[in-house]
Amino acid sequence: MTAKRQIHLGLFLQGAGHHVSGWRHPKAEAGSENFDLLRRVTQAAEQAKFDMVFLADGLTSGVDAHPSTIARFEPLTLLAALALVTDKIGLAATSSTTYGEPYHTARAFSSIDHLSHGRAAWNIVTTSYARTANNFSKSHPEHDERYAVAEEFVDVVRGLWDSWDDDAFIKDKQSGIYADPNKVHMLDHQGKYYSVKGPLNIPRSPQGHPILIQAGSSGPGQDLAARTADVVFTAQQSLAEAQGFYKSLKSRVEKFGRPADAVAVMPGFLPVIGRTSKEAAEKLAELDQWTELKSAMPLLEERIGHSLADYDPDGPLPDLPISDQLRSRAELLTALARRENLTIRQLALRVAAGRGHHIVLGTPVDVADRMQEWFETRAADGFNVMPPFFPEGLEDFTQLVVPILQERGLFRTEYTGSTLRDHLGLARPALTSQ
Amino acid sequence: MTAKRQIHLGLFLQGAGHHVSGWRHPKAEAGSENFDLLRRVTQAAEQAKFDMVFLADGLTSGVDAHPSTIARFEPLTLLAALALVTDKIGLAATSSTTYGEPYHTARAFSSIDHLSHGRAAWNIVTTSYARTANNFSKSHPEHDERYAVAEEFVDVVRGLWDSWDDDAFIKDKQSGIYADPNKVHMLDHQGKYYSVKGPLNIPRSPQGHPILIQAGSSGPGQDLAARTADVVFTAQQSLAEAQGFYKSLKSRVEKFGRPADAVAVMPGFLPVIGRTSKEAAEKLAELDQWTELKSAMPLLEERIGHSLADYDPDGPLPDLPISDQLRSRAELLTALARRENLTIRQLALRVAAGRGHHIVLGTPVDVADRMQEWFETRAADGFNVMPPFFPEGLEDFTQLVVPILQERGLFRTEYTGSTLRDHLGLARPALTSQ
Ligand SMILES: Cc1cc2nc3c(=O)[nH]c(=O)nc-3n(C[C@H](O)[C@H](O)[C@H](O)COP(=O)(O)O)c2cc1C
Ligand SMILES: Cc1cc2nc3c(=O)[nH]c(=O)nc-3n(C[C@H](O)[C@H](O)[C@H](O)COP(=O)(O)O)c2cc1C
Repeated sequence: MTAKRQIHLGLFLQGAGHHVSGWRHPKAEAGSENFDLLRRVTQAAEQAKFDMVFLADGLTSGVDAHPSTIARFEPLTLLAALALVTDKIGLAATSSTTYGEPYHTARAFSSIDHLSHGRAAWNIVTTSYARTANNFSKSHPEHDERYAVAEEFVDVVRGLWDSWDDDAFIKDKQSGIYADPNKVHMLDHQGKYYSVKGPLNIPRSPQGHPILIQAGSSGPGQDLAARTADVVFTAQQSLAEAQGFYKSLKSRVEKFGRPADAVAVMPGFLPVIGRTSKEAAEKLAELDQWTELKSAMPLLEERIGHSLADYDPDGPLPDLPISDQLRSRAELLTALARRENLTIRQLALRVAAGRGHHIVLGTPVDVADRMQEWFETRAADGFNVMPPFFPEGLEDFTQLVVPILQERGLFRTEYTGSTLRDHLGLARPALTSQ
Repeated sequence: MTAKRQIHLGLFLQGAGHHVSGWRHPKAEAGSENFDLLRRVTQAAEQAKFDMVFLADGLTSGVDAHPSTIARFEPLTLLAALALVTDKIGLAATSSTTYGEPYHTARAFSSIDHLSHGRAAWNIVTTSYARTANNFSKSHPEHDERYAVAEEFVDVVRGLWDSWDDDAFIKDKQSGIYADPNKVHMLDHQGKYYSVKGPLNIPRSPQGHPILIQAGSSGPGQDLAARTADVVFTAQQSLAEAQGFYKSLKSRVEKFGRPADAVAVMPGFLPVIGRTSKEAAEKLAELDQWTELKSAMPLLEERIGHSLADYDPDGPLPDLPISDQLRSRAELLTALARRENLTIRQLALRVAAGRGHHIVLGTPVDVADRMQEWFETRAADGFNVMPPFFPEGLEDFTQLVVPILQERGLFRTEYTGSTLRDHLGLARPALTSQ
């Protein structure tokens, strides 16, 4: 990390916006499959010196889903395209260890790292939703097995990234040696879930290893992050919760023999910005009014892992067993409902607005203050910013909040390096095999 | 197809060049991982009005491999990047049915079709080399089973591409309907190898279905092509062989109830161009002289499927059982050795130069004549052009041969449409489910 600790900013990119009704705003340009919008928004984030843009992902669809997820680009091809229209900003995409193959995953992220000259990041997820299995001719492994698979998957990917020394491709026309035979390393991995020989068919990439992000907050999720990740993406409702998670995560990082600042914790953060707090509250109310209970309920139910059809929407959330598949998200929402005494309807609306992430209503100064508070009291090292809709929701943030953070010395005014690793203040890893 | 039959041209893009020693030429800019070179070359092919660029692929590496395959970009991310720096040219990439997942494959090609506004093509291969399995924690299925899997895989992909009507995403802000629930189609596929429910999480793409190319020339390979493909890529040595293949393929197409001209046959074609035939022969000799037997032999052995270490390189190719895994390629090379009475060394050099594809030596007029002959005598509907090295090998072709083909009315002088489907003269498919 650089001398002075600064906030890291990601832009969580969802074409239709993060608020479930964001796309219905008169000024919203909807469309997760609208490349022109995604390009402009990504370039605006780069203009504002964000560390990265971030793409979530899922492997199912349906008309009841969040509009940003019914249809969207395949994230790796989208990142490659975005690499061509940007110069500095990091490019992060989600890819599942439960429904992927280590060789393909290693290769695609390395390829994007080459195309972007060192700006690629892989958000490692294990995929929560069991219905995903219906699209993949298999059954959905249970929670802890998914993480056991993920641990091994990540090791294979990192091993494959070290297939070649950085200077292996000498391409010496005189001697006819294209790749130096002394600079290739077979992986020869034989594990419980994978056997992968290697080598990978692409040179070691500009960052050595693309950046690893992990999004999963249960115990096994935190352990995977603590052992392997550079960044943790998480959903945290309150300052106290976030501080608790931060502390738990960092102590696990140290348990794995890594310095606490080797991993940046970046909670999701949904800002609704007005000239006054009243205006901000009205903005959110305007969006909320478009959310019908019947579109909000499926979003809550899939995160809780139970049907709530038999309960009074204006009554309290019943006591339900925490779904093993969802764990951290279900716990978070249950705690939120209890803490704020929310009815099912109110909780469903909250999920529809921010999907369990922290929502901040207020003036630009209010929003900057909240970020500073979370940052300085060790609830966060940065934030994954979730505009309720695009492009205006991002413009509000970059034009009004970013300059305040910059004035306070909390956020960069220029990129000082050219890779995502540079932005995060992380060194390029040496070959693990050496 | 358009009224007047014209030649279709693909540029077979391999950064290090097609001749195994092409990269050693003083003017060669080597590097399958050199995006700047690939970009310039692709733009030059677009300038010359080629139908498409074509990326082969493989899922293994090793210092003994062809230099274009030791290291290269992952093809789908590369295509997405190339989509951003071109406007008209088709973009084809190889993806294996043996080592892929239908949901991922359907999604990635649809995504590229959206990013490129209708220029994506999938080259369907089953992967010849058994060693690939070592990178994928599984065993390599035998030849005919690979094709049985491929048949079902392709059907699932096509079905997923028809998940949504073209006008399903109405995004009506007033009513709050993002996707019309009456315009989604569940695939509900339950087959021998795959069960995939759908729907795909991306709108139907500009071409309806991205173009399907098939590269595999055995009986089962031809049947898959005849039933499903728009383009067939094939390696043919002589005019007579190519005519035989063409006839066999087209009669299979008709057997499947499709018009013969629904499928374009495009053999690989490696041109070595000189001002005189003597200069052309010297150019090839110059490249061949850099090819050592020890680098040529592995390329021959992997295509024949047997070690030749125990045989005299200056003796004839022994009678060896045709490898079930390789079939069409092994047959082609054995026939070539017999027909031209080649020694093992000579055959290895031939493979090192063109990997079994047709090599044409001569003046620009000679090359154009050969293409015209193959085209008019129904040996080919077009060619996948394989420059021995880049960028000069392509420049020779676009600057000297293309104008001759254009003067003769055999090749377009302008794009008349904007999608690859337009270039190939193929209609946009209706939803199969309707
Ligand atoms: C903040 C956050 C973001 C996530 N993003 C995704 C995502 O984009 N795609 C996905 O399949 N899973 C995503 N997940 C799910 C996790 O990968 C994991 O499968 C699930 O949360 C269960 O693990 P946990 O109990 O450790 O949180 C996310 C989880 C969290 C906490
Ligand atoms: C002209 C041609 C090009 C091919 N290109 C590839 C390729 O890029 N990647 C690959 O894995 N297999 C490739 N193949 C292999 C085929 O997919 C197939 O697996 C193999 O040739 C065996 O099938 P066959 O006997 O039908 O030819 C190619 C085959 C041919 C004939």
